[in-house]
Amino acid sequence: MWRPFFQPYHLIIVQDGDPSKKINVPEGFDYELYNRNDINRILGPKASCISFKDSACRCFGYMVSKKKYIFTIDDDCFVAKDPSGKEINALAQHIKNLLSPSTPFFFNTLYDPYREGADFVRGYPFSLREGAPTAVSHGLWLNIPDYDAPTQLVKPSERNTRFVDAVLTIPKKTLFPMCGMNLAFNRELIGPAMYFGLMGDGQPIGRYDDMWAGWCVKVICDHLGWGVKTGLPYIWHSKASNPFVNLKKEYKGIFWQEELIPFFQAAVLPKECETVQQCYIELSKQVKEKLGGLDPYFTKLSEAMVTWIEAWDELNPSKGLANGGA
Amino acid sequence: MWRPFFQPYHLIIVQDGDPSKKINVPEGFDYELYNRNDINRILGPKASCISFKDSACRCFGYMVSKKKYIFTIDDDCFVAKDPSGKEINALAQHIKNLLSPSTPFFFNTLYDPYREGADFVRGYPFSLREGAPTAVSHGLWLNIPDYDAPTQLVKPSERNTRFVDAVLTIPKKTLFPMCGMNLAFNRELIGPAMYFGLMGDGQPIGRYDDMWAGWCVKVICDHLGWGVKTGLPYIWHSKASNPFVNLKKEYKGIFWQEELIPFFQAAVLPKECETVQQCYIELSKQVKEKLGGLDPYFTKLSEAMVTWIEAWDELNPSKGLANGGA
Repeated sequence: MWRPFFQPYHLIIVQDGDPSKKINVPEGFDYELYNRNDINRILGPKASCISFKDSACRCFGYMVSKKKYIFTIDDDCFVAKDPSGKEINALAQHIKNLLSPSTPFFFNTLYDPYREGADFVRGYPFSLREGAPTAVSHGLWLNIPDYDAPTQLVKPSERNTRFVDAVLTIPKKTLFPMCGMNLAFNRELIGPAMYFGLMGDGQPIGRYDDMWAGWCVKVICDHLGWGVKTGLPYIWHSKASNPFVNLKKEYKGIFWQEELIPFFQAAVLPKECETVQQCYIELSKQVKEKLGGLDPYFTKLSEAMVTWIEAWDELNPSKGLANGGA
Repeated sequence: MWRPFFQPYHLIIVQDGDPSKKINVPEGFDYELYNRNDINRILGPKASCISFKDSACRCFGYMVSKKKYIFTIDDDCFVAKDPSGKEINALAQHIKNLLSPSTPFFFNTLYDPYREGADFVRGYPFSLREGAPTAVSHGLWLNIPDYDAPTQLVKPSERNTRFVDAVLTIPKKTLFPMCGMNLAFNRELIGPAMYFGLMGDGQPIGRYDDMWAGWCVKVICDHLGWGVKTGLPYIWHSKASNPFVNLKKEYKGIFWQEELIPFFQAAVLPKECETVQQCYIELSKQVKEKLGGLDPYFTKLSEAMVTWIEAWDELNPSKGLANGGA
């Protein structure tokens, strides 16, 4: 189903779980495949920052990629159709979103002013009409919405059937729940902040990998003056994951997010932080200092954040040197 | 065209320009009509705060209304159709928007979580899911978009044909260009801040009446913890106003808005301001102090803001006493 849309691009597949299992990649794709043994071999002791038995392992792929734009997608997501019945080329829309500027400093009521048939409305300051570079394009999901376990339990049969034909910039200083199901980003801009944390095997939490990344990414984008867009493209999310299993993975996160949101809302990065790496290391310090008391997990996570940046800079040396790294 | 939608409601018509002209209101409507002589008689010397020969005069109607919810609409706006061809009941949608809470403190990627078929997505803090009272519902326009004169001149034939099936809350601390063409609000909450300023006859500026109100309203809503929604309903905007005439009215505003946006973005209201009236008076002081140097117009405007609140409290005495007023 995805073949016509994915075939022109380079794929990186991060195989989770048992590395002895063989994944069959259909013919005709240009791809690299990494399993746990590869991750351990490539990163050595720093492999500890990459989660196991959790979708968070995908961020290893962001680190080893050599491409400017990354698209990441869940395995239960398929090609959606627009209201006219036409198949949606999700990648094409993500690229459009990433190649056109964002408008994080003032809200445009006609949504993305750079789309065909739209513009800035009356009252929009002209000095802001050049916009800001777009770092992230957050796509949405038709059919099964991205609900947490309690909402899944309460509304097991709710389906998202509303096609909202809009792309919009999430304003500066506004946090949002970034879902990794259908997500694209400019790796050269924001790559080092796209760390999906410690989740799954041996960790007290799951299903917060993308959320964690999203909060860190948004704080850093706000600091560096970059934009985050959400809306189109849609993908078709085929099946709801088990809400009971999800509840077990999520329940600590449901408590913790009540503390995490105020933490990220209040987080201020000093002017001296001029690269994503510097911002991310600074954020890791604030995580240890302000969230370490909430649970020992956050001390461990803050250390993994540092390891992630060290590993990133090791695998991406020229950028690491240029940016100052850790 | 509007009859089936407006007839159940009470209309207030503010007649601009020559008061000796007779306006013919079609039969069967429950209405009050005010012309300039009425405004002068009712407000006495305080009538100076109500603009003449500009759409800003409509805010006199907000002041004399006794209703909880106000809908204001331009005379060149007609009933729009949704993509299925059904006529849109704009008032019904505005009431829905105003009666359901807003979510200004965190962004929900599936838009208004209170709409049928939608909810809060994974990662949305549960403590924020009760939302905030909605003060304003900002509707949009199909056909002729609300562009400024320069954009009208550059894109004379652009039409808005995109029906975006969404309502969303404009996040806290984000300013937006509020258009008065298709606007509803809760008068009991935010009424005293819905002042459309000094525009038109004898003033150096026009076409910024709704913008000015929107910036003041948003700052006050943010301070008091209320929400502003934008999106549905659409109306059909039938004709573009003359861009040359508009340019003359707007050109000072185009310069000034570059100063006004940073002013409103930086505006902080002290905790002691607990009512809209108190907030508005405080804002008028900041306008005088911070914008008075930009042009003498802003000193005059700040004084008119005070007069407006005095007039409001005179006409709405119980509220005035209860709220402390000016």
